[in-house]
Amino acid sequence: MRGRRAGGEVQRRAPGGTYGVIMAGGESTRFWPLGRRRVPKQFLAIAGRHSLLQDTARRLVPYVTWRRLLVVTRADHAAAVRRQLPHMPPEQVLVEPVGRNTAACAALAAEWIAARRGDAIMIVVPADHVVKNAGQLRRALASGARLAERTASLVLLGVRPTRPETGYGYIEVGKRLPGGATPAFAVRRFHEKPSTAVARRYVAGHRHLWNTGMFVWRASVFRAALQRCMPELRAALDGVCASDAPRRLRRVYRGLSPISVDVGVLQPLSRMRRPVPQMVALAVSFDWLDVGSWAAMPDLWGCDGAGNAVRAKLVSLDARDCVVYAPQQLVALLGVKDLIVVNSGGALLVCARSRAQDVRAVTQALKRRSWSGYL
Amino acid sequence: MRGRRAGGEVQRRAPGGTYGVIMAGGESTRFWPLGRRRVPKQFLAIAGRHSLLQDTARRLVPYVTWRRLLVVTRADHAAAVRRQLPHMPPEQVLVEPVGRNTAACAALAAEWIAARRGDAIMIVVPADHVVKNAGQLRRALASGARLAERTASLVLLGVRPTRPETGYGYIEVGKRLPGGATPAFAVRRFHEKPSTAVARRYVAGHRHLWNTGMFVWRASVFRAALQRCMPELRAALDGVCASDAPRRLRRVYRGLSPISVDVGVLQPLSRMRRPVPQMVALAVSFDWLDVGSWAAMPDLWGCDGAGNAVRAKLVSLDARDCVVYAPQQLVALLGVKDLIVVNSGGALLVCARSRAQDVRAVTQALKRRSWSGYL
Repeated sequence: MRGRRAGGEVQRRAPGGTYGVIMAGGESTRFWPLGRRRVPKQFLAIAGRHSLLQDTARRLVPYVTWRRLLVVTRADHAAAVRRQLPHMPPEQVLVEPVGRNTAACAALAAEWIAARRGDAIMIVVPADHVVKNAGQLRRALASGARLAERTASLVLLGVRPTRPETGYGYIEVGKRLPGGATPAFAVRRFHEKPSTAVARRYVAGHRHLWNTGMFVWRASVFRAALQRCMPELRAALDGVCASDAPRRLRRVYRGLSPISVDVGVLQPLSRMRRPVPQMVALAVSFDWLDVGSWAAMPDLWGCDGAGNAVRAKLVSLDARDCVVYAPQQLVALLGVKDLIVVNSGGALLVCARSRAQDVRAVTQALKRRSWSGYL
Repeated sequence: MRGRRAGGEVQRRAPGGTYGVIMAGGESTRFWPLGRRRVPKQFLAIAGRHSLLQDTARRLVPYVTWRRLLVVTRADHAAAVRRQLPHMPPEQVLVEPVGRNTAACAALAAEWIAARRGDAIMIVVPADHVVKNAGQLRRALASGARLAERTASLVLLGVRPTRPETGYGYIEVGKRLPGGATPAFAVRRFHEKPSTAVARRYVAGHRHLWNTGMFVWRASVFRAALQRCMPELRAALDGVCASDAPRRLRRVYRGLSPISVDVGVLQPLSRMRRPVPQMVALAVSFDWLDVGSWAAMPDLWGCDGAGNAVRAKLVSLDARDCVVYAPQQLVALLGVKDLIVVNSGGALLVCARSRAQDVRAVTQALKRRSWSGYL
């Protein structure tokens, strides 16, 4: 019954066309000391000549145009977004007073669209991913947009895993849905960061996809999903994109818990017997990389013969499988392996590669010691 | 016969008193990137407020006075020596055109003394050692001076080992000589850097001393030893401290091989059936440290609870037994152990602690790549 009511709010069509929504609110504590509070990784040219944000926007724009691009970011980064994306109308930077994770982020974009367009397709992507073939991505997004329009589903972009990656989340899929150029599957459940053994089974079993955190849905469908799974968030943001927005937004955001789309919406839906809206995973095959931590750099930069991924002037003697970022500086490695070495802005990180996910603990330690100047 | 002839050159007394001779010609390639070609470690305040050279001079001066202190160094470091030791008469910096290791260094000082004083006691010490109790050292040196005067021996300062140190050389001693406040022993042979197992036996057996590289002898006795063991060096330097010194010195030094006192004189003597002059080892017990590589720093600086020896602003998470030198900089260690991390002058070293002796290989690699700016 509840499902039917939630579904009932959804309009038949998305009259507002298709919007790209880039979520650029991250703190990137795992990229310390390069990523800082003032300049998180999405604003940095980690992967190439342009920042991750600029690359993300350039991948979407041929499909959605600058006039239909939204970037959701935190107040302290709004200026950086406008500076880095000068072609985007500045009012399309949706400013969150503080970061409250992706559920709030996507919800705010949905409210903005609801207030201005009634409804539209939303292509929701993080700002910090790397995709090598943008054309493939756009074709997958177009498939997703058609599917989202036609079925009123939450469409998840899943990538067929090519290696037993333990740092990603996985989507377990069920039966294949009929039709469509890109294979689409029902979503069964979600698995966060598996062990290597489990990840190997996932790769071999062909029933699991990497969860890219890229989604396609109609604003109205997502709002219905919020109504069902996070009604407080839905209520708090209702109508917040009207003219009195800034002050109300500050008040509202202070009261929000930081919850991701996955935890707040997708995982609860996956546990329901009759999820409405439904979730569909597109299974695509392209070079996609969640630049989640320094450990991702070898995939991004490539390696020398000893497995070292390097952005520095390097002298390496018996050093293997290290990640080194210290542009302009000489770095000598001697007899070490599986290390991450980053020197940036007066702070040096030396970290076991297996602990890349824990770099945020360093930033927490800095806060505790009141060494915030290094954050 | 040869022994008697060599011994016959030795005068009965050393009329010139006692000279301190500091050997400060080292390149300190094992302290890269802190120690550089232009500023080797002896000029750096690694241990405390003063440089190792200044500390070395201050330990000797209450005993020998500034007017009886000689510092032997390379031409490119003479100015630094004079600047760091302003109380020492500048002409007492004996300048080697190029570094040729300690045999040439001590021989040059012996020639200088022979030319000006005829004979004198020489206390020969490296510039890069740390001694915690200077009073104890001076008492040992005074014992050595009396012994050297009385017996016309080469007196070696040996320290009773307190741990199975594998980075030091050891003196194996024979029978104890009669008399003297400080126990003195005949020298049997020398052992370089033993394995841990062997070093343990040395510590347990009480027949081995750390070879400190500090020596006491009469200039005439040492010249006689050179005559016997390194006659070419002795001949090449004969009279070199006369007035035409600089030009001749350059020519002479170009032809010299870099050989240490130990290899060139002491070890050959120890293999002779009738060594003349004889060698005597004083067995002293004091806190002495050969600051030979970064691995020595824990003894010098002390450690935190996790065994980290640190000169930096440190955030340490699950990090053990590391040596960190990066003054003024923030360093974060995460999940690493047994590393040496040094950031200095635009160059960063990350090195396995067990490879501290191989840091010079980095400097050799820099030479090969023509990155000499970092040397």
